[in-house]
Amino acid sequence: MSTMSTKASSDNPGRTSQGRLDASKLSFHETSTRRQVPQPGSAELWAQNFCSDHMLTCKWTVDEGWEAPQIVPFANLSISPAASCLNYATQCFEGMKVYRGFDGKVRLFRPDHNAKRLNYSAERVALPSFDEEELVKLVKALVRVDAPRWLPKGAAAGRFLYIRPSLVGTGEQLGILAPREALLYILLVPWPDFSTESPPGKPPRASGLRLYASQGDTVRAWPGGFGYAKVGASYGTTFKAHGEATSKGFDQILWLFGPDGQVTEAGASNFFAIVKNASTGKTELLTAPLTENLILDGVTRRSVLDLVRSRLPEKLEIVEQNFTMQELANACSEARVLEAFVSGTAFFITPVSSIHFRGQDLIMPEIHETEGERYASIIKGWLRDIQYGAEDHEWGVIVDDGLEEVA
Amino acid sequence: MSTMSTKASSDNPGRTSQGRLDASKLSFHETSTRRQVPQPGSAELWAQNFCSDHMLTCKWTVDEGWEAPQIVPFANLSISPAASCLNYATQCFEGMKVYRGFDGKVRLFRPDHNAKRLNYSAERVALPSFDEEELVKLVKALVRVDAPRWLPKGAAAGRFLYIRPSLVGTGEQLGILAPREALLYILLVPWPDFSTESPPGKPPRASGLRLYASQGDTVRAWPGGFGYAKVGASYGTTFKAHGEATSKGFDQILWLFGPDGQVTEAGASNFFAIVKNASTGKTELLTAPLTENLILDGVTRRSVLDLVRSRLPEKLEIVEQNFTMQELANACSEARVLEAFVSGTAFFITPVSSIHFRGQDLIMPEIHETEGERYASIIKGWLRDIQYGAEDHEWGVIVDDGLEEVA
Repeated sequence: MSTMSTKASSDNPGRTSQGRLDASKLSFHETSTRRQVPQPGSAELWAQNFCSDHMLTCKWTVDEGWEAPQIVPFANLSISPAASCLNYATQCFEGMKVYRGFDGKVRLFRPDHNAKRLNYSAERVALPSFDEEELVKLVKALVRVDAPRWLPKGAAAGRFLYIRPSLVGTGEQLGILAPREALLYILLVPWPDFSTESPPGKPPRASGLRLYASQGDTVRAWPGGFGYAKVGASYGTTFKAHGEATSKGFDQILWLFGPDGQVTEAGASNFFAIVKNASTGKTELLTAPLTENLILDGVTRRSVLDLVRSRLPEKLEIVEQNFTMQELANACSEARVLEAFVSGTAFFITPVSSIHFRGQDLIMPEIHETEGERYASIIKGWLRDIQYGAEDHEWGVIVDDGLEEVA
Repeated sequence: MSTMSTKASSDNPGRTSQGRLDASKLSFHETSTRRQVPQPGSAELWAQNFCSDHMLTCKWTVDEGWEAPQIVPFANLSISPAASCLNYATQCFEGMKVYRGFDGKVRLFRPDHNAKRLNYSAERVALPSFDEEELVKLVKALVRVDAPRWLPKGAAAGRFLYIRPSLVGTGEQLGILAPREALLYILLVPWPDFSTESPPGKPPRASGLRLYASQGDTVRAWPGGFGYAKVGASYGTTFKAHGEATSKGFDQILWLFGPDGQVTEAGASNFFAIVKNASTGKTELLTAPLTENLILDGVTRRSVLDLVRSRLPEKLEIVEQNFTMQELANACSEARVLEAFVSGTAFFITPVSSIHFRGQDLIMPEIHETEGERYASIIKGWLRDIQYGAEDHEWGVIVDDGLEEVA
């Protein structure tokens, strides 16, 4: 660790004092070749792989800590084939969005939660920790640079970009030990709205997601594992099973756990069911608990629970506890399931229309016969209002976008 | 898939016919700046991060299949920050060695098993498959290029290099789906002999490995997971627990599984115990089975079992089944444990001197009071003889080293 004063010394401008992540040391290197912005609904957008003009990078070493962050033109990284991140999956990431409000303002949604989760994901795969407030400042700085062109005022009102912070173990190191070098980077990516749009050439989604309840042959997470952390290791290891499900016409896997088939989460999103309790007659919002570290502590999941707790206390009773797929199937056959939906940054709030379980499609109701409007769409509306500024709320964090603030 | 004839067309020389991995299409681009070869016992060697002059690379795309492989100067890779391998751990690898025999010849050890395992590891993380014989040919080709200088005849007799084939999902792709591009690469790395050497400045290892039996807070693998596959996701996720164990003075974690504490494997190696059966009085070679896909199907593990089966059938009875740490502790307290050792490419055959379990160090015997020489050292001697050519055996696959065969 450096023992320098709190200002970077002029003969070592690349280092931050004490090696802490420090947004005040940020430098900006503007691109000279601007990339073409994909159109809404275009194939480029649906490819989910086209990044904005700039990216933010910040290097960490075990000896010096965090160096000065930089915003640089988007470009490939130069990584040793012997790097830890390529061989041993020392990598974690976040998924967030930046929203262009109908009021013209740009907002993040509860970015402090993403920063916190990136920190505990990093810890799980032996990557360095950082000051969470500084990470949020860095995200804001990148947004300020690229939002004006990639999410323009007026034209992009009501639209968003996806934000991908990643932290990976770099440096040449084939030994079995924690990375001695790492790279934090942040990308901005134009992203389709899965909850409302369909890929070009495909018909609009007629109904909600078709889920496929996992068989025991592939298990996403385990107590003592890392299903709670947003680490690469939890994702690529599900692609094969996911691909098999989509090739059968399903949208996502609903991951069951254990011999009794506990419902955990759906694909890359959390799962909710609204069910009439057979004994009490109460309407319950049912979702898996965080207690066993099996499921991701989703920011949208947390927000759904917070909103239901504060705004629907008389209507919905939150039941955050383990339930099995068989229990859900029974409730379904007894017409006690009112609706089901998934929540997540990528999928936002999307209703579930069916779950394939033991050879049968359990059909989730499309409309509430008894209670009028679906709760999922009410909650989604509240979240959208916060994200796009129709409701002034502390969860919507305004970013003043404009290059002048970065220079 | 291409429908070209079996020869690459001249206007598309980068593509192999049908997109299959094809060693006959290999090209060689010799380095102009040779790297310094680390000395035996040096800090550079112990850093386990210094690769040889060249590496082999081969690109795959979903549209074209495998392109023509190349041997090129060792260099960093250019990888998009949005690549699947950096975000979703679509990555797998192998660990092999190339040995310079006392007869001057260069040998691989059962490389067909590594090629097969890389294929099923690749399948587990949605990466492309390949013809295993072609991969072995490519490993041999790289060995031919760099063995003469990095593992020279005479000076390096009785020494080895580590070989690291890796397969990673490249291309820009942040969607949750199988990689549409991938890169296979092979590195050669000077590597310390963990079974006989110590890092510079540290005293020689007085005895065997000190293992630390895992607590329930971290599990390495689970049924339906990927512990059987050599995927990055099984490694980085153990670094934190491993680091905590080494900071307490232990060498490796002995991974237990389940509420009853089944013994699975040790760090990055398989675990064996030689135990007198309390009922039958027979001497058993005890190791966890492959049946539940929890442990790695180690090439050294398999070879240990094969050699014991063929050469020690009267002495040791192979018991490839689940056993618990408590059962091993009981056998230890009843003086029925004759020895314990780990096997793997990195650790080769290394005796275990103690296992820390529930606050106590179970001491493994250092010498056989009753049976004379330790079986681990007998088996290790046989393997070494095969690897270095003292015994002519089909497991030792000779590579004619010399540049003329590659050009």
